Amino acid sequence: MMFILNPGVNEAQVREFRDEFEKLGFQTIYCPGTQMTAIGLIGNTSSLDPHNIVETHNIIRSGTRVSEPYKLVNRSFHAENKNVEIGNVIFGEGHFQVISGPCSVESEEQIIEVAKAVKKSGATILRGGAYKPRSSPYSFQGLQEDGLKLLSIAKKETGLPIITEMTNIRQLENFDDVDIIQIGARNMQNFDLLKEVGHCRKPVLLKRGLNNTIEEFLMSAEYIMAGGNENIILCERGIRTIETMTRNTLDVSAVPLLKKESYLPVIIDPSHASGIRSLVPPLSKAAVAVGVDGLMIETHNDPAQALCDGAQSLDLLQFDSLMQDIKRRVEFEGKIFG
Amino acid sequence: MMFILNPGVNEAQVREFRDEFEKLGFQTIYCPGTQMTAIGLIGNTSSLDPHNIVETHNIIRSGTRVSEPYKLVNRSFHAENKNVEIGNVIFGEGHFQVISGPCSVESEEQIIEVAKAVKKSGATILRGGAYKPRSSPYSFQGLQEDGLKLLSIAKKETGLPIITEMTNIRQLENFDDVDIIQIGARNMQNFDLLKEVGHCRKPVLLKRGLNNTIEEFLMSAEYIMAGGNENIILCERGIRTIETMTRNTLDVSAVPLLKKESYLPVIIDPSHASGIRSLVPPLSKAAVAVGVDGLMIETHNDPAQALCDGAQSLDLLQFDSLMQDIKRRVEFEGKIFG
Amino acid sequence: MMFILNPGVNEAQVREFRDEFEKLGFQTIYCPGTQMTAIGLIGNTSSLDPHNIVETHNIIRSGTRVSEPYKLVNRSFHAENKNVEIGNVIFGEGHFQVISGPCSVESEEQIIEVAKAVKKSGATILRGGAYKPRSSPYSFQGLQEDGLKLLSIAKKETGLPIITEMTNIRQLENFDDVDIIQIGARNMQNFDLLKEVGHCRKPVLLKRGLNNTIEEFLMSAEYIMAGGNENIILCERGIRTIETMTRNTLDVSAVPLLKKESYLPVIIDPSHASGIRSLVPPLSKAAVAVGVDGLMIETHNDPAQALCDGAQSLDLLQFDSLMQDIKRRVEFEGKIFG
Amino acid sequence: MMFILNPGVNEAQVREFRDEFEKLGFQTIYCPGTQMTAIGLIGNTSSLDPHNIVETHNIIRSGTRVSEPYKLVNRSFHAENKNVEIGNVIFGEGHFQVISGPCSVESEEQIIEVAKAVKKSGATILRGGAYKPRSSPYSFQGLQEDGLKLLSIAKKETGLPIITEMTNIRQLENFDDVDIIQIGARNMQNFDLLKEVGHCRKPVLLKRGLNNTIEEFLMSAEYIMAGGNENIILCERGIRTIETMTRNTLDVSAVPLLKKESYLPVIIDPSHASGIRSLVPPLSKAAVAVGVDGLMIETHNDPAQALCDGAQSLDLLQFDSLMQDIKRRVEFEGKIFG
Repeated sequence: MMFILNPGVNEAQVREFRDEFEKLGFQTIYCPGTQMTAIGLIGNTSSLDPHNIVETHNIIRSGTRVSEPYKLVNRSFHAENKNVEIGNVIFGEGHFQVISGPCSVESEEQIIEVAKAVKKSGATILRGGAYKPRSSPYSFQGLQEDGLKLLSIAKKETGLPIITEMTNIRQLENFDDVDIIQIGARNMQNFDLLKEVGHCRKPVLLKRGLNNTIEEFLMSAEYIMAGGNENIILCERGIRTIETMTRNTLDVSAVPLLKKESYLPVIIDPSHASGIRSLVPPLSKAAVAVGVDGLMIETHNDPAQALCDGAQSLDLLQFDSLMQDIKRRVEFEGKIFG
Repeated sequence: MMFILNPGVNEAQVREFRDEFEKLGFQTIYCPGTQMTAIGLIGNTSSLDPHNIVETHNIIRSGTRVSEPYKLVNRSFHAENKNVEIGNVIFGEGHFQVISGPCSVESEEQIIEVAKAVKKSGATILRGGAYKPRSSPYSFQGLQEDGLKLLSIAKKETGLPIITEMTNIRQLENFDDVDIIQIGARNMQNFDLLKEVGHCRKPVLLKRGLNNTIEEFLMSAEYIMAGGNENIILCERGIRTIETMTRNTLDVSAVPLLKKESYLPVIIDPSHASGIRSLVPPLSKAAVAVGVDGLMIETHNDPAQALCDGAQSLDLLQFDSLMQDIKRRVEFEGKIFG
Repeated sequence: MMFILNPGVNEAQVREFRDEFEKLGFQTIYCPGTQMTAIGLIGNTSSLDPHNIVETHNIIRSGTRVSEPYKLVNRSFHAENKNVEIGNVIFGEGHFQVISGPCSVESEEQIIEVAKAVKKSGATILRGGAYKPRSSPYSFQGLQEDGLKLLSIAKKETGLPIITEMTNIRQLENFDDVDIIQIGARNMQNFDLLKEVGHCRKPVLLKRGLNNTIEEFLMSAEYIMAGGNENIILCERGIRTIETMTRNTLDVSAVPLLKKESYLPVIIDPSHASGIRSLVPPLSKAAVAVGVDGLMIETHNDPAQALCDGAQSLDLLQFDSLMQDIKRRVEFEGKIFG
Repeated sequence: MMFILNPGVNEAQVREFRDEFEKLGFQTIYCPGTQMTAIGLIGNTSSLDPHNIVETHNIIRSGTRVSEPYKLVNRSFHAENKNVEIGNVIFGEGHFQVISGPCSVESEEQIIEVAKAVKKSGATILRGGAYKPRSSPYSFQGLQEDGLKLLSIAKKETGLPIITEMTNIRQLENFDDVDIIQIGARNMQNFDLLKEVGHCRKPVLLKRGLNNTIEEFLMSAEYIMAGGNENIILCERGIRTIETMTRNTLDVSAVPLLKKESYLPVIIDPSHASGIRSLVPPLSKAAVAVGVDGLMIETHNDPAQALCDGAQSLDLLQFDSLMQDIKRRVEFEGKIFG
C-alpha cells in the first residue's frame, strides 16, 4: 500500500505514522521528495482500507493498494487453471459444460421430463430451484425439501449431477445428494453463507451480485477458499445498469478479467443476464466466443405455465436447437463439448 | 394489471388468455378498440410479474401494474403514520431520534465510553456491531456473542436501548436483550432472514440495499410485515452510483417517497451514505430538512484506531457539536428531539 | 398510450380529459370497469410524455406507452435490413466491415503507416480523430483541419474511405472528403448536431452515449432520419456501470435488441468499451458471435507514444493477428469479411 | 503522479521510463524498495492519464494522481469563495438566490405572468427555455430566437435578470441581452460549447451531466475558466441511478464536495432532479440545509398545459407558498434571501 503525504508534514509526524504500522507488523518505506513525499507499507495489507487510513490521518493525502486484496484465488500464485470436477464432468481448460433445467422444481413429471430432454440435447448438469429467493413474499417460494427430493429422483433417473441454490446456513444438511451448491447473486455478499460452504468440500457455483464489482466478486470467492474449499466456479449473470429493456446487462468483459485475475473456471448465465428468452441464443454465442468454460441456461417444458421466470426460459425444442449451434461453436473454439 | 394486445389478435385467443387467469381466481375486463385492445386483471396481482406474462404470451404486447405490489406496508390503507416504540423512545410523527455508537463493539471500555458520551449529547439509542459483514475475510469480523454481551453491559450502565445487526438466522436466540434488530443493506434481500425477523415482534430497522429501488425496499418490508411484525423502521443509507468521491450516494428523495408510499417511520444513515466524516454534518442537516424521523450516526472514541469504518466515524466532540446543531434544526421543524 | 384512472373519478372529469386530447387531434377510447377504468389515446403520441400527463392530471393514476416513440427507424415498418453503402463497402446483411486507425491523427507518416497496415490486415474503412473531445482542456485537442487534410492524403494513398468525428455544427463544411461522419458518445444527445447531419446525405456512424438507454439511442437515430438522412450505422461502445476495472461495460445485448427494434446496421467498438488493449480481442470475438455487422478498433503504430488513448490501441502486429482470427469467425457466421 | 513498478524491473528500464517523462519536462523521483519500487512525476500532469501510462508501459503496475487534474477552479489556490454578480444579485457567501420560470417560453402573456409572480414571491432571476434540447424530434423544440425576444420583454417589464440555455456555438450572438448563459446537463461535456462560453465574460450556469462524476464536472468548469471566464455557477440537478420512481437522483453530497474542491458558488435544481412536482418542496429544504447558494425551480402559470416538463413545474401559488418557507430557512442559516 502506498501513501502520498500532504505538503508540509514534518519528520515527527512521519515517524509517528510509520511507528503505528510497524507496530502492527508492517514494514514501511519512506520516499521523501521536494514536492511529493510517499510512504509504502509492506506486508499483508488485505485487511486494511486505504480510504479509512487517509480519512483518519491528517498527514495523508491519498492512498492506493499496490497488490490485490484477494490472495488465495489470485492468478499470480497459480499458473495453471483450476479444474472443478463433478464425477467425470470437468469445468476447466479445454472443456465446456452446459447446466440446464427449470427455474423451480415444480413436480416430479416436470423435472424428469426436463432432465431427460436437456441431457439428450447435451447438458451435463441438471439445475432446478428448491429454495427460491423471490422479491415478493406472495410469489411461489419453491418446494423446499420436497424440491430437493425431486431433484434426487431426476438425478437417479438420468445420471445427471444436480445443482441447486442454498439460501441459508441451516440448509446444508439437506444438500448431501446435491453435487454443486449454488450461491445466488443476492447472496454473493452473505458472508455467513460463504463461510458455511467454505467449510465443506462440495463444488460451489458462485454468482456475481447484481451490483458488485469484479474485485468484490473475487473477494467473495476468497471467503469460500479461505474456509478451505477450492472447488469454486464463478458465474457472470449480468449487472444492473441504466438499461431498462433487459433485466440486467451481461458483462462479457468480466470473463477475460476473471480469468486474468483468478485461476478459477468461469461460466455465464444468459437467462438471468437478459431476462428475455429471445436473447438467450445470441448471448450464449457471445459467451462461447469470449472464452467461458460453460453456460447455465433455464429451460422449461411449458414456459408459459412456469411458476417462476418463464419469460427467460427456453422450451425444450428451443434448447435443443440452441445446443446444436453451441456444440459447433465450442468445437470451433477447440474445446470438448460436454 | 393492464395488458395491451398485439394487433390482429382474434377472439379465441383473447378468450383463452382470459380463461387462464380467471381459473387462477382473477376477474378480467376486456376493452376492445379499433387500434388498440386492452385486457385488465382484477385481484391480488402481487405474485404476478407483468414482464413474464408479456414474454410468455404471444398475443400480449405490453403489461403494466395498476396497483403497487406491496400491500401491508402501503400508505393507501393506513392514513396514520406508524409509531415504532422502544420503551418511551418513539420513532414516528412529531418525534426525532438519534441512534449512535461505534461501527463495531471493540471492548467494554470503548462501548461504555461511547455510550455515555452519545447519551449525554442527545442520542436515545445505542448502536454497535457485534456480527460484522466485511467484504474481506481478513478484516475484523466483530466480537460476535461477546460483542452482544458488552452491548448489554452498556445498556445497563446507561439505560439506552440497543440496536445491533443480525446477519444470519441462527443468531436470533442471542438477541433477547437487543431492542432493535438491524437488517443490513447487504441483507435487504436475504429473504430467509426477513422471514425470521418477521416472526418475532421486536422492532426491526431495515436498511435499503446499495442497489435496490424503493419498490424493492418496500417489498422487503412487506416480507417482514407478512410474517406478522409491524414494527419496522426504514433506513436510507445511500445507493451505489457512478460517483466515486463518496462511498455511496445519499438518496434524499427516498424519504418523501417512502413516506408517501408507506406509513412507516424513515431515518437516514449519513455515515454509510457518504463514508466520509466531514460529510456527516451537512448530510444530517439535509436529512432533518427533508423530513426524516431520525438519524443513525457512527461515532468512536478514537476513530483513527477504529477496527472498522473509522473514516466515517465522528469523534465524541464532533458528535456533540453536531447534536447541538441538529437539536436546533429539529425544533425548527416542530418536532421533539429525543 | 394507455392511462389508468384513479378510483372515484366521475364522468365529467373523464369527458374533460378526453376533450383535451381530442382537441389535439388524438382519438380516445374509454374502458370503464368496476374496479379499474382505462382511457386509451390513439394517434402519433411520440411527442407526449406519459409521466408528464400523469403528474399534471389528478384523475390519472398511471400511464404507459403502447407503441415505441421512434417511428422512422422502427423495424415494424421495415422488414428488410438497411444497407449503408460507402462505394462498394457495405454495412448490412451478410457483410462484415472493420473500421480501424488511430484515436488521433498525429502526423502524415503516422496516419499513412497505420492506414496501409490496417488495409493490408483487412480493414475497409480508415478512422482517425481530427477534432478530439477531451475531458481535460490541457489534453491534446487534435490537429483539427490539418488532421482532416492528413486523412484525405491517407485516403488518396490507400483508397480507404475515411471516417472522423464531427464535434460541432460549424465543421460540416470541412467534411466534403470524409466518407462517414462520426457522432461521438458524448454528442449522442447533442440534438443540434444530430439535426445538422440529418440534413446531409453522408453516412453517419452514431455512437451510443455512455449513459443512454437503447430507446434514447434510437430516438437520436430518429432525429437524424427525421432530417432526411437514412444512412445511419449504430455503434455500441460500452456504457458506464458500477464496474471499475474496465473504462465502460460493453452491452452485447444491445446488438440483438437494436436489430429487433430498428432496421439499421449495428457495429461494436471494443476499444472504447473496455479501454484495455488486452480485452479488445475477446470482445471482438463476442461481437462477431452476437451478430454485429462490423467492428471499429483503434490501432497505432506506437501505442506507448500515442497522444490519446494509447491504453486501448492495438499495435499493428496485434491488429493483424486479431484480423486473421476475426476473418475465420466471420466466415463461420456465413458472412463476407471486408 | 505516482507509479508503482512491477517486481523484477531493472535499472535500465527505470532509466528509460524516467527519460521519457523528463524529456516532456517533468521532474521524476525514484523510490526503490526491496519489495515495492515507486516513481513519482512532478509538474503539471493534468494532461496525462495514469491509466494510459500503466497500460502502455510494461514495467508499471499501477499509477495514481497525487493532485487534482483541475487547477484554475481548485479551492487549494483560492481561500475565498467566488462571488458571481449579476447587477446587485450575488451568488456567493452569505447570499441566497432563487432562479425561477417556465421550462419553455411559450408566449408573451405566459412569460410575463410568470415573471411578475415569481418576482413577487422572491425570485431574483427569471429562467425560460428558448432553445430546448428534447429527446424526441417530435417534441416542442422551443420558440428559439422569438423566445429570447420574449424573455427580453419580460426582463424589461420586471427588471429581473434572465437566464436561458445555449445549445450550440452559433447562438452566442443572440445572447446579448441574456444575463446568465445556461449550459445544460446534456452539454456538460460539449467541449466546443464550453470553449465558446469561456471566451465571453458573461456568467455561466453549468449543470452537472446526468452521468458525470464531480471530477468531470469540475473539469468542465475548468474548460470555461481556461478560456478566461471566471463567472461560473455550478448546478447539481440529479444523476441517473438505478432508482426509477424519480427521473434522477439528487446528489446532495455533491454540494459540500464541490465547495471543498472548488471556490465556486453551487446551486441545486430540484425540479429536474426529481421530475416530480411534489418532491420539489422537500428537496428544496434539503438543499438549503446542505448549504447551497441558491435554487433553480421550474414554475408555470398552468402546468397541465405546459409544452414541456409540466410534471415537475410548480404552479404560481405552490411556488409562492414554498418561497415563504424557504425564506425562513435561509434566514435560519444566517444568509440573506434574494
